[in-house]
Order: sequence, then C-alpha cells, then structure tokens
Amino acid sequence: MKKNILYAQSGGVTPVINATACGVIETARANSDRIGKVYAGKDGIIGILREDLIDTSKERKANITALRHTPGGAFGSCRYKLKSIGESKREYERLIAVLKAHNIGYFFYNGGGDSADTAYKVSQIGKNMGFPVQCIGVPKTIDNDLPVTDNSPGFGSVAKYVAVSIMEASLDVQSMASSSTKVFILEVMGRHAGWIAAAGGLAAREEGDPPHVILFPEVPFRQREFVKKVKHAVENYGYCSVVVSEGVRNSRGQFLAEAGLRDAFGHAQLGGVAPVVAQIVQSKLGYKYHWAVSDYLQRSARHVASKTDVDQAYAIGEAAVKFALEGKSGVMPVIKRVSNSPYRWKIGEASLGRVANREKKMPKSYISTDGFGITPAARRYLEPLIRGEDYPPYDRNGLPKYVRLHNVLLKKKLPEFEV
Amino acid sequence: MKKNILYAQSGGVTPVINATACGVIETARANSDRIGKVYAGKDGIIGILREDLIDTSKERKANITALRHTPGGAFGSCRYKLKSIGESKREYERLIAVLKAHNIGYFFYNGGGDSADTAYKVSQIGKNMGFPVQCIGVPKTIDNDLPVTDNSPGFGSVAKYVAVSIMEASLDVQSMASSSTKVFILEVMGRHAGWIAAAGGLAAREEGDPPHVILFPEVPFRQREFVKKVKHAVENYGYCSVVVSEGVRNSRGQFLAEAGLRDAFGHAQLGGVAPVVAQIVQSKLGYKYHWAVSDYLQRSARHVASKTDVDQAYAIGEAAVKFALEGKSGVMPVIKRVSNSPYRWKIGEASLGRVANREKKMPKSYISTDGFGITPAARRYLEPLIRGEDYPPYDRNGLPKYVRLHNVLLKKKLPEFEV
Repeated sequence: MKKNILYAQSGGVTPVINATACGVIETARANSDRIGKVYAGKDGIIGILREDLIDTSKERKANITALRHTPGGAFGSCRYKLKSIGESKREYERLIAVLKAHNIGYFFYNGGGDSADTAYKVSQIGKNMGFPVQCIGVPKTIDNDLPVTDNSPGFGSVAKYVAVSIMEASLDVQSMASSSTKVFILEVMGRHAGWIAAAGGLAAREEGDPPHVILFPEVPFRQREFVKKVKHAVENYGYCSVVVSEGVRNSRGQFLAEAGLRDAFGHAQLGGVAPVVAQIVQSKLGYKYHWAVSDYLQRSARHVASKTDVDQAYAIGEAAVKFALEGKSGVMPVIKRVSNSPYRWKIGEASLGRVANREKKMPKSYISTDGFGITPAARRYLEPLIRGEDYPPYDRNGLPKYVRLHNVLLKKKLPEFEV
Repeated sequence: MKKNILYAQSGGVTPVINATACGVIETARANSDRIGKVYAGKDGIIGILREDLIDTSKERKANITALRHTPGGAFGSCRYKLKSIGESKREYERLIAVLKAHNIGYFFYNGGGDSADTAYKVSQIGKNMGFPVQCIGVPKTIDNDLPVTDNSPGFGSVAKYVAVSIMEASLDVQSMASSSTKVFILEVMGRHAGWIAAAGGLAAREEGDPPHVILFPEVPFRQREFVKKVKHAVENYGYCSVVVSEGVRNSRGQFLAEAGLRDAFGHAQLGGVAPVVAQIVQSKLGYKYHWAVSDYLQRSARHVASKTDVDQAYAIGEAAVKFALEGKSGVMPVIKRVSNSPYRWKIGEASLGRVANREKKMPKSYISTDGFGITPAARRYLEPLIRGEDYPPYDRNGLPKYVRLHNVLLKKKLPEFEV
C-alpha cells in the first residue's frame, strides 16, 4: 500500500517557504503511482500533535501552483521545539501514533536547525518503536544560519528586499539632504548573525555608494567610531545611509534596542534599535534623521523575491520527495555552490545529524576591517543569491494574486491530546 | 530666439517625480524647434537662487529615459518656502535675475501646494518687473492633498506599496498567530490626511481580510474602541493587522507618537507611532506584537510602483511643456477622472490661484462609520490608482538599474547670493 507524506512548516516563515511546499506537493502528485497523498500539519508540529492534518489532495492544481508565488506559511507554522526524547517522550509517542493512524511513510519537516533536530529524533524513535518512517529535513530560514547548505532558502529574497530598499531610500535621502534629512537608518532582522545586514551592502558598488555604515551583531557597537563614520559620510557624500541589524549589542553585551529607550512609565521599550541609533546621531551630530523598521515586511516581500531563491526553494521541496522515493531517511537536501562565476548550484545531501542544532556564523572575512561594511568575499558569496526577478501575478486591481488554501482537515482517528 | 525651460523639484520626493522630469525633458527635446534647453535647479529653488543650474542637455538620451523608472529626485529637492512678495522681495528679484541671465522663458515648479503658490507669485512678479515668464505648476505629492486634480502623481505608487505590504505581512502573521505574534502594526506616512493609511484598506476585499483596523489622522484615537476592535479581530480571525497613520492624534489633539515614548533621558522620542500603539496592545491585551515603520521605504519603492501613477506622472510633465508651447502661464496640468468603470483619465488644466495653499481633505464619506476602515466609495476612488505594474529594469546582479545623472552645472553669470 502506498504511504502518505506528512509535511509541516516550522518557525518563522519566509517569502518562499510555500514555493518549497509547492515543490513537495507537485512532485508527489507527479509520482502518484508510488506515493499516496500529501498531508500537512495545521500550524506545524502543534497541528500534528493535535491530529489537525490538512489534506492537500483537496486543493485544485492551480492553487498548489500558486503556492510558488505566495508568501507566508500556507498551512500555518509555529514556534514549538520538542525537547530530548527523555523529556518529551509523551509527545514523540503521540507523533508516532498520528503517523501510524494516517499511514504516513514520509515525514518532511520544513524549518531551521531545531526542525532538523526534531526530524532526526523522529526517525530514531520511529525505528525504536517499530514504526520506521522516512524523515527528511527540508531547510528554510531567512537568517541563513544553517550549516552544510551553501545558503538557506528564504534568505536570498530577504537579502534582495534589503538591498533594493536601502538603495531606493538612499536615493530619496540624497535628493533632500542639502536642506533636510541627512541620515537614514534602516533596521533589519538577524538577532544573532549579520547575514541580512550584510546583504544591504550589495547596494554599494562604488566609493561613496550607500549604505555608508552597516552595524552587525558580530561587532560590538562602538559609539565614537560610529559617530565619526556618519560624520565622514555626511561631509563627503552629503548624506549617510545606515543599515542596522536588530541584534547589535553594546560592549557589555546588551542589545542596543533594549539598553536605549524607555516608555512613559519607565519600562524598556521592546524592539526598535533604529530609533536608538537615530537618537545617538541626533544628540552627537545634530543631523536631521529618519528611520525605518522593516520587520515582517522584509520577511514577506514576495513581490520583490529573488528568482535564484524561488528556484532553490522549489528544488529543495522537489528533492525531498526524490530522497523519499530513493528510500532515504535522516537526511536533508542542501544547496551546493558549484561555481561562483558563472554562478551554478545543485542539490546535495546532508545527514540531519550534521545540520541539527548548529548555527552557521558569518565568516569574519566577510566584514571589512573597520567593522562597518562588507568585503569583496562577502559580495562574491551574496550577489548570486539575489539574482533574478520572479514576480507574482497581479489581479486587475493592482494587487498580487496570493492564494489562500481551503485547508480541509482529515477526519480524526485518535483521542484528543493536550499540547 | 528660443527660450529655455527651468525645471525644479520641490519638497518631499516621490517614487515617480523623475518620471515627470522625464516627460518634461523628452517632450521639450521633441520640440527643439521651438524650445531651447531644459535647465534644472540643483536641490530645487535653493539652487536657482544660488544660480546652481543643471544643464540637462548634457545627459545622454538613455539616461533621460531611465528617469522614468528611477526614484528619488534626480536634480535634488528642498524644503524652502518663499514667503509673500513683500517679505521675500529680495529672493523674488534674484529669481527673476537668474531667469533673465539664462534666457528662461518657462518656469516649471514640480511640487505641492506651496510650490503652486510660488510659481503663481513668480508669474506675477515677472510681469511687474517687465520680464514675463510662463510659470507652470507641476503637481506631485505622495500625500494626495492637492485640490482640483483628481489625484496627485506619487500617491498611487505609495498606495500600492502600502496595500501590497500589509497584505504580505498579514499572510506572515496569520501563519504564526496560533502560537506567536497575534498583532501586526504598520506605520505609514500622512501627517494631516489619511489618504495613505486608507490605501492599506485596499488589501481587504472580504470579511475578515486584513487590515482589520486603520487609524486615521482624521479620527481622534479612542483607546477603548481600538482595543475592543483588536480583540475582536484576534478572537474571530486569529490575528489582527493594523495600519496606523503617523498623524494620529489623541483626543487632546496631540500626536500619539509624541505623547507616548520618552528616551532614557526623558526626552520625547521623535517619530514612531507604531511602537506606541504596540505598547497599548501589549498592556491592555497582552498579545504578542510586531511593528514596522516603513518611513522613506514607502516613498521611494519604485520597484513596486503603480503603472497608472507612472503613466500619469509622465503625462503631467509632457502636458506642462504643451501648455508652455500654447503660451499658457499661471496654470497647472491636473488629472481628471473621466470614468470609474472602466477607469479613464485625461489631463486637464487648473489655474494656479485655485491650487495654491489649499489642502484636499479626505472626504468623511471615505471612512467607515466605526472610524476604523474605508467605505466602498473610498475603494472606488482608490482602486484605479494602484492598477498596473511598471517594473524598473534590473541588472544581472539582481538590483534595479537606477540612473544617476551627471548634473553638469551651467557657468554662473551673476554675483553670489546668500540663501
């Protein structure tokens, strides 16, 4: 009897995680002689534990195809980490029970390092419990911090959004700087690693190009040097454009965002390092400033996605099904860079044990010696990842045609379970 | 002898103000038998007073064509308002001297209500001083607050950016809401009028669609009703998506942004109503939130411009030259809506006296009775303005090919002038 696939999205979504889902479902449908249906966990692993399983076979072909260009997580996602098998035994056993009840032969977990770890544990526990299930990790994260894979699906599109946005906003600031705003600050995501902030540097191709300053989480904030750098840009180029990572810390290791502002009641303000940096510019240099916090906009901006990223996200989903058909388990499809110039990539394979719970730091060699910019090596790595445009279709009223699935749930077969 | 055009950009720039400049220059070049060169004030009217005039005839055709898809203000802009002729006599006389020295027959001032006023005064004072110059106001403003014209070039693209962005970010929030962020707040521009905030409402087509709450500057903030509305959305749709205008005020008329946060030294924080609204959600409802401030990103996002807007911005520039050729002065080309369905528009003519210093408020009938959304009438007005896509070309490294002009200055002929 053909086995079904169970697919789940995990953690923060990306502009292209649904392209991966599209790759999984389309490839499974193309192999319907060997694979049953594709089910999806509603809101990720929580839905699996609750036996809230979505039957994707109820969706029309066109809706599945539209997943390729739709941001967000079409089946819902969650932040929920299973602990060790000892600590979370009850949950692992429930997982296996759900898989058994719905004839699941393949478990695909689409997420970051934590998810790889969970997929790995499910494969082990299934074996121990006499219910072998092929577990495939499927990589995604805008943070680009997964090891082994050359880059993480999702990152390239966020990188493109940040590079395009700082380029555009800088043209704006530059036009007005002689009599108005002189400093513009864009806050981007990346709490632990500066990959996204570094992508802003792609906008700068020539001496004097914006951004003039990048603040990385990897480099403790040095106020005096920062102020000097801003002053230099304003005096030499007329304005200063800054990209700041939300994860920048001061020399005592505190997040700058938390060390700064307090609300009217004296509570530390949550979030927003850009206004803190802006206040420093204002108080030390007196320049007029503006700041933006792109927050979820950067993580959902499918309208300006990178074609490279979309293609890779789809290919990763496709490869997961192929791995399943080849009988593999405990593995993850990864992106391998074949060459830089011309940029070529292919899908490779990594064992989940190598991926699980490891963070890929940005190499020191990617940050310029003054700590405020990127190096040519960083540019060589980053540039191909934002290449190509892949626009969603728009309706006649000027809005993208993003699909909302019906998400029909399977009939439950098991008793309730408290998550 | 053929007379030259002097063109200047004024006030905050837009994603399409350069499309208007493109329309002016290309149309003038196409009529080179009757019109001399197009000069542009460097950094707007300040450059004209300083006799810093850019000779656009030094730019290659391809660079002028590329203005159509380049955001920012290619010649620079400024915030500088000439006062009454009595108060600013010295400056008006200097203006006329500069126009005379460079054989200017046509003065095009590309800006908002203030600029229309200035253009109007220049036409009067020229006449009085025996140097008649044809003065044409050329409309632009993202705020959409110019009277007479059906809409202002620049607004449609910002409106599209806001509608697309809130749609995308809401898909993201919705995916995660069951276990993570439940409320997302997007701050948009519009200090006095809610046109831009209203555009966010275009993303909502069906009951339950985001944004669920819009906070307009026209409606004093009522915390209790707002909190109730957010709670209702979270309880019924699982999450709540909010668009807030930077200009929202409390019942005492204070900007909410200023009434809220203070920095560590007790100074009021400048800018940022989104974090203030987020704090209210947090303290009254305890929901996890995220907020974004799009700031200049919205005003420069040429990558997601409205085709309607780009076409109109170009046509306005083209019309200014035609008006000049027809001997007109003291007028402004405006956009007239011919029909709503299908949407048709044409260029009309307004006298500068009717446009100057008047603000177009958003009609009360565009805000829903509960004060938190837009009406079908608003939708009918707004929808055509964001229609159509008009992507910039991208280079092979995945970034838009935005042009930077050489901006070659004319030789000065007059003594220096202190601005």
